[in-house]
Amino acid sequence: MSNKIKNILIGKPLANEELKGEKLNVFWGLPVMAGDAISSVAYGVEEILWVLVPAVGSIAYRQTLFVAGAIVVLLLVLVFSYRQTINSYPNGGGSYTVAKENLGELPGLAACASLFVGYVLTVAVSICAGTAALTSAIPELAAFKVPIAVFLLGLMSVGNLRGVRESARIFAIPTYIFIVSMLVLIATGLAKVYIFGYTPAASFEIPQGMGDITLFLLVRAYAAGCAGLTGVEAVSNAVPNFFHPAQKNAKKVLSLLALFVLLIFGGTSFLATIFHAVPNYDVTVLSQISLQVFGNGVMYYILQIATTVILVMAANTSFAGLPTLLSLAAGDGYAPRQFALRGGRLGFSNGILTLSFAAGLLIIVYKAETHDLVPLYAIGVFIAFTLSQLGMLAKWIKSGEKGRLGKALVNGVGSFMTVVTVVIIASSKMLEGAWISLVFIAVLVCFMKMVRRHYDDVARQLKLEAADIAKETEILEVDKHMIVIVESLNKASLKAINYARHLADDKNIVAFNISVDTNGSEKIKAKWEECGIPIPLVVKYSPFREIVEPLAEYIKSEEHESNPGDMITVVMPQFVVGKMWENILHSQTSYMIRRKLLHDRHIAVITVPYVLDE
Amino acid sequence: MSNKIKNILIGKPLANEELKGEKLNVFWGLPVMAGDAISSVAYGVEEILWVLVPAVGSIAYRQTLFVAGAIVVLLLVLVFSYRQTINSYPNGGGSYTVAKENLGELPGLAACASLFVGYVLTVAVSICAGTAALTSAIPELAAFKVPIAVFLLGLMSVGNLRGVRESARIFAIPTYIFIVSMLVLIATGLAKVYIFGYTPAASFEIPQGMGDITLFLLVRAYAAGCAGLTGVEAVSNAVPNFFHPAQKNAKKVLSLLALFVLLIFGGTSFLATIFHAVPNYDVTVLSQISLQVFGNGVMYYILQIATTVILVMAANTSFAGLPTLLSLAAGDGYAPRQFALRGGRLGFSNGILTLSFAAGLLIIVYKAETHDLVPLYAIGVFIAFTLSQLGMLAKWIKSGEKGRLGKALVNGVGSFMTVVTVVIIASSKMLEGAWISLVFIAVLVCFMKMVRRHYDDVARQLKLEAADIAKETEILEVDKHMIVIVESLNKASLKAINYARHLADDKNIVAFNISVDTNGSEKIKAKWEECGIPIPLVVKYSPFREIVEPLAEYIKSEEHESNPGDMITVVMPQFVVGKMWENILHSQTSYMIRRKLLHDRHIAVITVPYVLDE
Repeated sequence: MSNKIKNILIGKPLANEELKGEKLNVFWGLPVMAGDAISSVAYGVEEILWVLVPAVGSIAYRQTLFVAGAIVVLLLVLVFSYRQTINSYPNGGGSYTVAKENLGELPGLAACASLFVGYVLTVAVSICAGTAALTSAIPELAAFKVPIAVFLLGLMSVGNLRGVRESARIFAIPTYIFIVSMLVLIATGLAKVYIFGYTPAASFEIPQGMGDITLFLLVRAYAAGCAGLTGVEAVSNAVPNFFHPAQKNAKKVLSLLALFVLLIFGGTSFLATIFHAVPNYDVTVLSQISLQVFGNGVMYYILQIATTVILVMAANTSFAGLPTLLSLAAGDGYAPRQFALRGGRLGFSNGILTLSFAAGLLIIVYKAETHDLVPLYAIGVFIAFTLSQLGMLAKWIKSGEKGRLGKALVNGVGSFMTVVTVVIIASSKMLEGAWISLVFIAVLVCFMKMVRRHYDDVARQLKLEAADIAKETEILEVDKHMIVIVESLNKASLKAINYARHLADDKNIVAFNISVDTNGSEKIKAKWEECGIPIPLVVKYSPFREIVEPLAEYIKSEEHESNPGDMITVVMPQFVVGKMWENILHSQTSYMIRRKLLHDRHIAVITVPYVLDE
Repeated sequence: MSNKIKNILIGKPLANEELKGEKLNVFWGLPVMAGDAISSVAYGVEEILWVLVPAVGSIAYRQTLFVAGAIVVLLLVLVFSYRQTINSYPNGGGSYTVAKENLGELPGLAACASLFVGYVLTVAVSICAGTAALTSAIPELAAFKVPIAVFLLGLMSVGNLRGVRESARIFAIPTYIFIVSMLVLIATGLAKVYIFGYTPAASFEIPQGMGDITLFLLVRAYAAGCAGLTGVEAVSNAVPNFFHPAQKNAKKVLSLLALFVLLIFGGTSFLATIFHAVPNYDVTVLSQISLQVFGNGVMYYILQIATTVILVMAANTSFAGLPTLLSLAAGDGYAPRQFALRGGRLGFSNGILTLSFAAGLLIIVYKAETHDLVPLYAIGVFIAFTLSQLGMLAKWIKSGEKGRLGKALVNGVGSFMTVVTVVIIASSKMLEGAWISLVFIAVLVCFMKMVRRHYDDVARQLKLEAADIAKETEILEVDKHMIVIVESLNKASLKAINYARHLADDKNIVAFNISVDTNGSEKIKAKWEECGIPIPLVVKYSPFREIVEPLAEYIKSEEHESNPGDMITVVMPQFVVGKMWENILHSQTSYMIRRKLLHDRHIAVITVPYVLDE
């Protein structure tokens, strides 16, 4: 039943051999890998205006273009830097890999943790921004922002649990529709003003700014706008997801991405400037512009819906990136092993579910308000960028390769710009929420260290040399002691007793009963006699009504004639009920016994099921 | 460590033999059993005013006394009725027992479910009202109503987990302080007005009522005020908790309870009338009265604090009643068995925790607003009262006892009044929330029926006759087949293999490995050869990366040469880690295997622990 639902939602399981078929070419790869960066225009420009417009009023618009220009320059620098990364790391060179290999363990983990935060926030911010695009067009839905966002997140999760290629299919068309619609918007907007002489008027009252344009203000606007610059990372991390020649295809996707962002981010910033868009919680900047350009007609709604869809899809960049990152970290022993296992549809299901859960939490806590989530956002991504750039720089410095100077220069510029950006973001957004991300990154790094230490420890203890085999076998050359737990004398306990007698000699078996009232003790002893069961029954009265402790004491006591080092086997009957809920009707004694006794290395536990008919 | 915390919070475990010591005499029994009814004046009068004052304005005060009088009459009828119940049911005759014995199973379950709802709401309402008494006196705390209420609930739970008598000690003094303070308040208030000629003035503006006093309005006020009439039930249910002579002591407590309620409820209603208290969400009616009577001095704060404490203690009535009720139901097989077990301190811990959880949920959902919770409240209690009265009536009708006519008359009057009250409450409170309680009661009745059916079913299947023993033994007279699960070849799996070899002959053992990639298969085969382990290794490749299914298939397949009906034993190594959190770092394969395989009645599972050092 639950399997059927799973099959309908997620699709039939795919075999390992079908993995190759799930790879991407440039056409399908662009929307999956670059959707985030392209769609970020929808809120990137808006975040710049949020800083400038309330501060200085209408003179803000002159400055917006400069800030947007600086961000585009940063993007181009990143694109060039990451082309080098793709060249050097054909198996996927995310910040994590690059920083770990060239800078060491701790920077690697810091990059991993930062990316984790970045990816989660990409999902949360994109979905909230997508919801805002929808509620801008249909204000009646504004009260349902949170449920809408959570629903969209659920849709994304299911899509990604279905698998990589199918998700590309679902997501490519809307991405291309958005790109075309945006280009049409920019062209129409420019034509309307410069050819047909339309005079734009602000849709909302422009606040009376109190201050002047200062460098500090521009820097803060820059930091805010940087929120849009994720996604580059995902391409270089996901090189193995591309068809052969994977590196070349990845670089093509990266270049196309740069081109589209340049056009759309630049164009939208320019339109926001001439159409005097005013940022607010109810109507997005993009909605204000397109309403003026297209009027309240079909094209406006197409663009709003395409924006919603592309933003939701943008979250997909993280759904491709984070699970891959976690599987890399798990492979290195820094994350629980479960993240390295592919699910039924060959995606890393545990990573996908972790991402959905974390993003869902953020959406609910921040009530789906994009603008409130943004301060947490960029810091993680840019720490990862910085570590990646520094890692590449270190690589060129150490290497003896030809032409390394030029390459070092590219990554050197990248390092410089990203370091500066991190400092700017940290200083201007710290109190608004960046500290939350920083604390979380630090905690995550510690956790990853602990996980690795634990795995190393286990591996050391389990390692088996041929020489060990004889020694390990020795321990068990002793008597077989069996203790059968008997709660009451019924068919289930009789089955357990018979099972024990089948494995060991009667003389080594005892039945063990714990009674919590003295009446009960007498009753079971009498019934035992009556039934004539040929093994001895030990009845312990437990005045404190505990079950496990008297058993543990009995095993340790001299009364039980085992020698130290003997292997003792505890046999437990367990009811197996037909329906899940029926389990709450039976005390979970066998679970508690197992949990406690297994901590003793000389006790093994046998569970003998008694399956109840329904 | 967690045991230490538990011991500090709850106290050291008590042995069965100490149970007798936990009984109550009249002095300690009154506060434990009757705290609810006595304290209910704090909100009972207020609920009457909530109906009348907004509807008809200042003329409401004239009517309040009549309504309060009707409720006091109802209380007296109930007290007389319940004295008969205590006489007839020395082992505790709650509505559940009385209805079940005299009316049948379904009415019994309905009574049980109604009481459950009533008890939970008693806790929620009392604690919220106690919090309101506190925030009325200290308005700065008003913003923290919910956390305060939840904290108080936690305190109650801990107190009750410590045990019956200790809770009586903690709770008795404040109850008596409250009783004395209230009597002082009433006496002072009356003296102030009638002897010293003080002219009361309303503390809040009295609303301009729009309507007239109608019978319907009075009836609604009556329904609202009935919220205070729980607690009687608890005394008759808890007869066995009293010292010998238990019935006599219980009846004394019941009579004292009636006396105090008569004085305090009547007195407070009268004071509310002459001091023109106006119900609102910020300041309680009782606070308004005592502020006028005592002024903003020490006595005012003593009374407010005593009110808070008594109301919180009042919840204790339910903490004594509900767990006992659940243990009765569990004893009859209508509730999970765990409710019938006494905890470390001899209280029914599971019942106490269930009650705390349910009440906590209500407090949080209803934001600790007493007035919003009240509509859910009285319906459950009065359905239980009605069923109990009808049960007693049926008992007298059926019995041949002398003097049964008089007794039938008492319970007949009780039945009539409670039936009428249920109808009034249901009709006037249905849409405000009574339907929630009714739906929940219906669901609970169905659940209890299902639980009983399940237990009956299990008992039937497990029942062991001496004749069965030979037959049951037969099944296992077959070969010992063992399958050892080997994830990789390490010390843990070697230990499991040795354990299996120790129990069975080598020829009946196979090691079983599931690999999710073809590389892995080759590696483990090679290492197996190298180590020279003398039992065969079966490696299955699982293209869909599942673990349990290939194993289940293998067991069913012909490949495994067992005969149908053979008992097959699956041996699993299991890592035992030192710290709880480390469990998430290991796949829970053994848990999943156990869960799936144990549904087959011919498979037993052996867990061989491998304890990792820390």
